[in-house]
Amino acid sequence: VGTPPVSAHAGFADRLVRAITRAGSPACAGIDPVLERIPAAVRDGCPGPVQAIEAFSLGVIDAVAPTLPAVKLQSACYERYGGAGVDVLARVSARARDLGLVVIVDGKRGDIDVSAAHYAAAADAIGADAVTASAYLGTSSLAPFLDAGIGVFALVRTSNPEGDAVQSARLADGRSVAELVADAIAPLAGRYVGACGYSHLGAVVGLTKAGDARRLRERLPTSYFLVPGYGPQGGSTSDLPAMLDARGAGVLVAASRAVTCPPPGTGDWRADVARAAERFARDVASAVAK
Amino acid sequence: VGTPPVSAHAGFADRLVRAITRAGSPACAGIDPVLERIPAAVRDGCPGPVQAIEAFSLGVIDAVAPTLPAVKLQSACYERYGGAGVDVLARVSARARDLGLVVIVDGKRGDIDVSAAHYAAAADAIGADAVTASAYLGTSSLAPFLDAGIGVFALVRTSNPEGDAVQSARLADGRSVAELVADAIAPLAGRYVGACGYSHLGAVVGLTKAGDARRLRERLPTSYFLVPGYGPQGGSTSDLPAMLDARGAGVLVAASRAVTCPPPGTGDWRADVARAAERFARDVASAVAK
Repeated sequence: VGTPPVSAHAGFADRLVRAITRAGSPACAGIDPVLERIPAAVRDGCPGPVQAIEAFSLGVIDAVAPTLPAVKLQSACYERYGGAGVDVLARVSARARDLGLVVIVDGKRGDIDVSAAHYAAAADAIGADAVTASAYLGTSSLAPFLDAGIGVFALVRTSNPEGDAVQSARLADGRSVAELVADAIAPLAGRYVGACGYSHLGAVVGLTKAGDARRLRERLPTSYFLVPGYGPQGGSTSDLPAMLDARGAGVLVAASRAVTCPPPGTGDWRADVARAAERFARDVASAVAK
Repeated sequence: VGTPPVSAHAGFADRLVRAITRAGSPACAGIDPVLERIPAAVRDGCPGPVQAIEAFSLGVIDAVAPTLPAVKLQSACYERYGGAGVDVLARVSARARDLGLVVIVDGKRGDIDVSAAHYAAAADAIGADAVTASAYLGTSSLAPFLDAGIGVFALVRTSNPEGDAVQSARLADGRSVAELVADAIAPLAGRYVGACGYSHLGAVVGLTKAGDARRLRERLPTSYFLVPGYGPQGGSTSDLPAMLDARGAGVLVAASRAVTCPPPGTGDWRADVARAAERFARDVASAVAK
């Protein structure tokens, strides 16, 4: 569209690549705290649910920070507690950044014009390095985040089976709707490339949809794929190679319950989380190295 | 899918129909307060931006409540102020409900499983009668709202031109992607029908896309269409008849700036808003009556 590329613009992708290199694995802990799954020791020590959510989130962050490059915070789990919950999300995000973690706020926002700019301001207020966002309204719901210096993972191919109804429908020209979305965001991704060569605009591509990954990768060669679906959702790291880019990288694999709710082992839940994070990081690193 | 219909289930659609009948017009004020557009008289009387947002929102609600059946609150405008902003959103919503207005929180959320249930809890915490939500992940991101007694307007055909890139692409079978989404949500809409005969699951269909409305209406015969795009976005009420259902109803037309930021007239901004709301309500009522 004639707009000059905003290339070599240091930003989200550069911070992400640095963090992954330091950690030695593109593995990301998904933190989506649900009261019922929080260890009783944490719940019992807190006056109410929102304090328990905060204590658990901070404990997980402390436990994974030595091992992992990034965390993905599920916005809904905090928002359900209203303004107090959003304040917790901001404090949890701040702790994660203080410990050197890249923070992805998984809120799947998507609106246009002024509202999109407001969501970018909201993400900034929370302290997000990047957000997840919907592209159903077009790229005008993504650009305001990028313009505010916040990375974006656009929803392209989600890990849940019900997503197929829309995302795997075939267009007259043979593309799937997910491929259509990838094509729609590709020019924007190409305009926001960091010094590291990766775009600040990535894509969510589920591990359970690895069969579609190659055609999405062709369309988004410089985009990081945020890859949910590891563990309980049925995705295996053996599917990862199909998602990699020409450099053998470009993925950030997210696991939630497998890392944050491991089976009790040491008697100290934080030590259990730290061990689960180490195992997850090794598993992802060795799958990517293959 | 074998699930029995949850029909004659009193809920959102029934409240909406009652409110529209009482007001005599299916017209909804969109409240998306932006600091720069708030009257100086309001801004000057407030210690900070978030207080000005609250004072303006409450003033608009008081001004439109005698005339309109519903308000649509743009979540982003409040979220940008973090937890304090979300608390304001809840108070604004409570005032609107106290005055008999139906409250739609326009947050365009969309996630799956537990996260979707959390978004429903968050909408409930804010006091929403209904929300806007994305269907790109499938109906599993909509059902949890309905199960929690909260109405939903799924994003089907948005009013912005950039939405065409995805929404008007053609499938191999001739349908547009917007029609595909309408077909995907139709069975769920049919399962959540209120005593009034309308579904608690509606659809966002922009006034600027009225040419597509008939094919969407065929697919969603009992769904209310939430219709943005009036005024500055270029939509005219002369396009409304194409969007109506077999009863000559089934639309809720939203206007934001045209109602909440009218040109100064009486010297009292609230009186100006009240007059703009009356004009808008008459305009919509007469277009629908044709």
